[in-house]
Amino acid sequence: MGELIFVGLGLNDDLGLSLHALEEIKSAEQVFIELYTSLLPEFSKDRLEKLTGKKLMMVTRKDLEDDDGEVVLKAAQAARTVLLVPGDPLIATTHIALRISARKQGITTQIVHGASILSAAVGLSGLHNYKFGKSVTIPFPDETAATTPYRVISENRKRGLHTLCFLDIRPEKNRCLTIKESLIELMRVERSKSEKSLEDAIVVGVARAGNNEPNVKAGLVKDIVAYDFGPPPHTLIVVGRLHFMEAEALIALDGAPEAIRRYSE
Amino acid sequence: MGELIFVGLGLNDDLGLSLHALEEIKSAEQVFIELYTSLLPEFSKDRLEKLTGKKLMMVTRKDLEDDDGEVVLKAAQAARTVLLVPGDPLIATTHIALRISARKQGITTQIVHGASILSAAVGLSGLHNYKFGKSVTIPFPDETAATTPYRVISENRKRGLHTLCFLDIRPEKNRCLTIKESLIELMRVERSKSEKSLEDAIVVGVARAGNNEPNVKAGLVKDIVAYDFGPPPHTLIVVGRLHFMEAEALIALDGAPEAIRRYSE
Repeated sequence: MGELIFVGLGLNDDLGLSLHALEEIKSAEQVFIELYTSLLPEFSKDRLEKLTGKKLMMVTRKDLEDDDGEVVLKAAQAARTVLLVPGDPLIATTHIALRISARKQGITTQIVHGASILSAAVGLSGLHNYKFGKSVTIPFPDETAATTPYRVISENRKRGLHTLCFLDIRPEKNRCLTIKESLIELMRVERSKSEKSLEDAIVVGVARAGNNEPNVKAGLVKDIVAYDFGPPPHTLIVVGRLHFMEAEALIALDGAPEAIRRYSE
Repeated sequence: MGELIFVGLGLNDDLGLSLHALEEIKSAEQVFIELYTSLLPEFSKDRLEKLTGKKLMMVTRKDLEDDDGEVVLKAAQAARTVLLVPGDPLIATTHIALRISARKQGITTQIVHGASILSAAVGLSGLHNYKFGKSVTIPFPDETAATTPYRVISENRKRGLHTLCFLDIRPEKNRCLTIKESLIELMRVERSKSEKSLEDAIVVGVARAGNNEPNVKAGLVKDIVAYDFGPPPHTLIVVGRLHFMEAEALIALDGAPEAIRRYSE
């Protein structure tokens, strides 16, 4: 019986792999890698091939989505196969679908977890995990208006909850949505609806989580939209009600102005 | 100037560490470790000391909370210091407070992320990440009634959202709340309120995320409360509205009965 092991690459580069992940790669017959669901800016395929002594076969969105992962499933039918995935490996729905297909073909599956932007962005911000509501992905504004994300953010804020916003990426086109572009689009949607949910909102931008020097900055929308976060990947958090300890964290850790204390309780 | 590096241990055992984390431990002057905010059932301090060549100094809840992390901060003032933390290192509020104290003392801080139960439980379940609402911690029922968690679950369900429930642990007393105990307590709260939010709810239990053989099982509350998940740590997900692809995942991956399809849309 075949075996397919989903291995998380963690964040940023090839040192995000766990020791467990490294063992699985070394003992696999075939190792595939996809790098289109998230951006790992400092990742080197060559370096990881040298470290593990394995050839890494790149799979594309076409391989995994249009062709339903056939190339990976075929390998996994025959022998112990690893699929390397940025972050924690079963967050993108693509990989859940692949895992279901594998199981239906009688292929055993296993998961080796990696660090994910989900917990990394929350942790870097200093905000409290249990105060986050539903999360959203903000699409490229020239493809889809951010009407749904705006509604989710607005509903979360009404209940005092923070919103973690993943920003869309298209690595094959070398495009990553930035914090600035996302805020401009969200404010455009707000004006078109004549609402005021974002007007006095505090936001936190997180750039390059997993890097030794991530750029994390908190403040009012009007200040953060003008801030230069540097290269991608970017993540945005829209803050709901602030606990006083969270306000303290945003000031001490994320360079927010002292004035945000008045928004806390 | 001093330096304090928060390093995530990831899940389950000492192989959850990333290569980056390993480098940081090896190059640190002093390495502290806390193992009370989450349970790493197969972790061995001895094995990690041998692997890294470093002595790991255990810190307790008292050290980090009652004494405000003074022992760690004092070391970090003097030299490059690592604090090892289960999971991803800034999810527990204790560590956020410590990071703020460090920064106020002029100590540089850095984060090395690790795999977290946040993304691991979501990924293992096969449910879609963007359909989770606010998460909760379920306390030990003999200490605190689960009234607040019940309300959060109920509000999430009204909006069709899933709830990730962390189950309380007290490693110093060798106590971990189980999926069974949590469900019994939630049903007790439900009866006391004469509500019916859980009656026909689907839940997913996740035991030992990060282990090679985690136990993940989905079904109706009445079935899951009777299921034996084995040893801790346990995590519970209460499902909101099910997308048909999510129903498919719960059946194919988590052994849910075919009948749950009628709850999906």
